[in-house]
Amino acid sequence: METRPLPALPQRVVIREVGLRDGLQIIPTIVPTSVKLEWIRAAHVAGVRELEVGSFVPARLMPQLADTAEVLAYAKRLPGLVASVLVPNLKGAERAIAEEADAMLVPLSASHAHSLANLRKTPDDVVAEIGRIRAARDAAGSATRLEVGMSTAFGCTLQGRVEDDEVVRLVQKVLDAGADSVGLADTVGYADPAMVSRLFEKVLRVAGDRVATAHFHDTRGLGLANCYAALQMGITRLDACLGGIGGCPHAPGASGNVSTEDLAYMLASMGIATGLDFDALMALRGKLAGWLQGETLHGAIWRAGLPKTMQGEEVTA
Amino acid sequence: METRPLPALPQRVVIREVGLRDGLQIIPTIVPTSVKLEWIRAAHVAGVRELEVGSFVPARLMPQLADTAEVLAYAKRLPGLVASVLVPNLKGAERAIAEEADAMLVPLSASHAHSLANLRKTPDDVVAEIGRIRAARDAAGSATRLEVGMSTAFGCTLQGRVEDDEVVRLVQKVLDAGADSVGLADTVGYADPAMVSRLFEKVLRVAGDRVATAHFHDTRGLGLANCYAALQMGITRLDACLGGIGGCPHAPGASGNVSTEDLAYMLASMGIATGLDFDALMALRGKLAGWLQGETLHGAIWRAGLPKTMQGEEVTA
Repeated sequence: METRPLPALPQRVVIREVGLRDGLQIIPTIVPTSVKLEWIRAAHVAGVRELEVGSFVPARLMPQLADTAEVLAYAKRLPGLVASVLVPNLKGAERAIAEEADAMLVPLSASHAHSLANLRKTPDDVVAEIGRIRAARDAAGSATRLEVGMSTAFGCTLQGRVEDDEVVRLVQKVLDAGADSVGLADTVGYADPAMVSRLFEKVLRVAGDRVATAHFHDTRGLGLANCYAALQMGITRLDACLGGIGGCPHAPGASGNVSTEDLAYMLASMGIATGLDFDALMALRGKLAGWLQGETLHGAIWRAGLPKTMQGEEVTA
Repeated sequence: METRPLPALPQRVVIREVGLRDGLQIIPTIVPTSVKLEWIRAAHVAGVRELEVGSFVPARLMPQLADTAEVLAYAKRLPGLVASVLVPNLKGAERAIAEEADAMLVPLSASHAHSLANLRKTPDDVVAEIGRIRAARDAAGSATRLEVGMSTAFGCTLQGRVEDDEVVRLVQKVLDAGADSVGLADTVGYADPAMVSRLFEKVLRVAGDRVATAHFHDTRGLGLANCYAALQMGITRLDACLGGIGGCPHAPGASGNVSTEDLAYMLASMGIATGLDFDALMALRGKLAGWLQGETLHGAIWRAGLPKTMQGEEVTA
């Protein structure tokens, strides 16, 4: 039987916790600022070092994220924590720059239909806005990193198929427009591991190490399989939400983002360092269940517990 | 950025449905024989061509599988269906041979502790029994295929770690004792994709194409990621249970086997042929929910539905 050489997996991976933004933005519950600060503090204690803390959007659109500036200011005080915010446009980016966010994430939907429905802009209009954001950052002499999150990169509930070539084209344009890095997001849970390998391979060919992040939803149960496929492509930053919150409004009742604790378990089991303290993560998940009463939390390791082979040892790295 | 060549995935995969045995054996509900026959008929209509229909164990131990002979006789009448039964020992195997099962599956636990607790035999005692089963089959001139399912191959709730070398040693012994093929089972949901690649690579080196099946539980959310890792190693037969039934008694509330419909979705999405009709599978899952009222069914695609990109087209292959 022939040998089947597999690519080496990364030795170290960063899990960026996006629950405070991607999770909370579709949840009707308004989480008080004081609770968000406790959440951030506990995440930091658990070893989280990249955290999306909110979004600079008009408060009337997302009242649950209206305290982003205050939350960001708190997060910035925690040592070693990279605090990012989502900004949909130049106006949001100006706030992120003024508030000295470590990073700002601009969403760009690779699906034309989704982009129009969501932002009333074509993807290429968003590219132009990214150019303006880069210019504003440079003019301000700001150190805020500019990352683009390419949403619906694996398909779209409105448009259906999104062509790989269109994703690659937009990645190139976004980098040309001045983004520091770009990530691929499976916003609606359409990706499978073969798609992940294929699309990341194409995107890595044009963007190299400026490919920042993979962001998967577990809507159809493939979230962790997709993370594994991304790891095989050498991706070392993965988004996740504690408790798998952040479901898709088009799939009511379905799972949300890949759950942080399940991903942390998978990585720890494979001997990949994340710097996360598993017990502290689980304690925080317990608190989260209390804070978000009425919301469904997802994830498997919460119920099953660690394997006997991983009990007793300190699961961290 | 360097290229990362991935092994080609198989073009065709067989999903063996094991719900009637692995699913029902830990569920207190007694499913009437007439319902089992309806279940089998519907599975056959949905394209299932390998089906584990029950177990030849003493009825007092597993009353819910006491009708295995009748269920097997029915399954054998359906064209193209490979009907297998689990047999824990020579006595069970003699029944499987007498009833002309297409295949008999002998479980052998790679964990010494689990083997003793479960069967009151060491793994090597079971190897000896497999030799006797092979002799009985040959003496009977029977065509019943003899497959060994190596359980706890990735770890054990009693013993903890199970060494790869012990699994490889037992695989070799089992084949020497006359088994036609051997599969690896993650009975308690301890496997991760890196383990799957590593262990299958080692086992393939000694067993080649006599490695039959991969059997994963989704206890800790890694079931589909593990299936993907097995596909990358060239494994083309995967066990699964409709509705993800068949949980582990050591992890109450946790998921059970990999769910057939989620696995079928993943494979269809990746363009791997299974011969399964997705809509018919989902209809059967609906019926199953009625038959197993009070039991928790698992799986993601049931709630989320197919991606728009796969709707309308006939999802089968």
